[in-house]
Amino acid sequence: MEVHILRLGHRRDRDKRVTTHIALVGRAFGARGVYISGDRDLAIPESVEKVNNEWGGNFYVEYTENWKHLLRSWDGVKVHLTMYGIPLPEKIDEIKKSRKILVIVGAEKVPGTVYSMSDYNISVGNQPHSEVAALAVFLDRVLEGKVFSIRFDNARREIIPAEKGKKVVKK
Amino acid sequence: MEVHILRLGHRRDRDKRVTTHIALVGRAFGARGVYISGDRDLAIPESVEKVNNEWGGNFYVEYTENWKHLLRSWDGVKVHLTMYGIPLPEKIDEIKKSRKILVIVGAEKVPGTVYSMSDYNISVGNQPHSEVAALAVFLDRVLEGKVFSIRFDNARREIIPAEKGKKVVKK
Repeated sequence: MEVHILRLGHRRDRDKRVTTHIALVGRAFGARGVYISGDRDLAIPESVEKVNNEWGGNFYVEYTENWKHLLRSWDGVKVHLTMYGIPLPEKIDEIKKSRKILVIVGAEKVPGTVYSMSDYNISVGNQPHSEVAALAVFLDRVLEGKVFSIRFDNARREIIPAEKGKKVVKK
Repeated sequence: MEVHILRLGHRRDRDKRVTTHIALVGRAFGARGVYISGDRDLAIPESVEKVNNEWGGNFYVEYTENWKHLLRSWDGVKVHLTMYGIPLPEKIDEIKKSRKILVIVGAEKVPGTVYSMSDYNISVGNQPHSEVAALAVFLDRVLEGKVFSIRFDNARREIIPAEKGKKVVKK
């Protein structure tokens, strides 16, 4: 299965770090890349590019001018993560059958049309918390813990897990 | 099992939103509260208090002047989440036997002594991503999906999960 992410409504000042976290979570948990709509903010692709250069892989960050067009033309399943949605465990078996998924995560206020254009509106808990957390748990469960086995091509550095301290191999 | 969180090295400007996400994830995923060290920043307890008032429960936010003292005097298990640590699946059975856990999540740079003062240094993937994501996956796995069943006392609002749109009950 291949997973891509759409980050809706990025605001340069307010969301810089949270959107960067979304991209890095996508990369580390096994998604292919992220589309960002909202403010055009070079800091996000620059941060991700630094991580790709150092830690490997080719996770992409792309701005999209027209997220409605992206949703309409998407040739796969669209899953919107929202605290108002159906709990993930009720739909996960269906969702895991998908060949290609676009996971949609919003910033503060998501337009109503996103709910109707998505195939699934899914909650990771029906409480306010964090789109970064919702994305991480969604990817962890749908990709069955891929975060614990993922390896990246062309990594310059790799961590050797350690009981105490930091062990890093340079390549 | 009861879980508490220690957020190390909070910086008022840079970390405001990420630290708020950590607190809200802790609340939504079943932790009791969060200790914050670093800048004293009233915005965090204020945000959490608003959520408690509206959505219920009594998740606490406390500043700690002396995190070393908190670690030394902690009468439970201390788990530091770090990309350099041992993968969670290798230690989860041991960790789940604990009666009381302090989960430690750092901001940018964590002092070396945290690694030695912790009982476990645990990774959720050995790639750079997000302390919010690491905390969410840790709590989801250790508390076995409590995020999907949690209910809060004194909630003024509750969500009725919906296929499309938003259904909220006021109480």
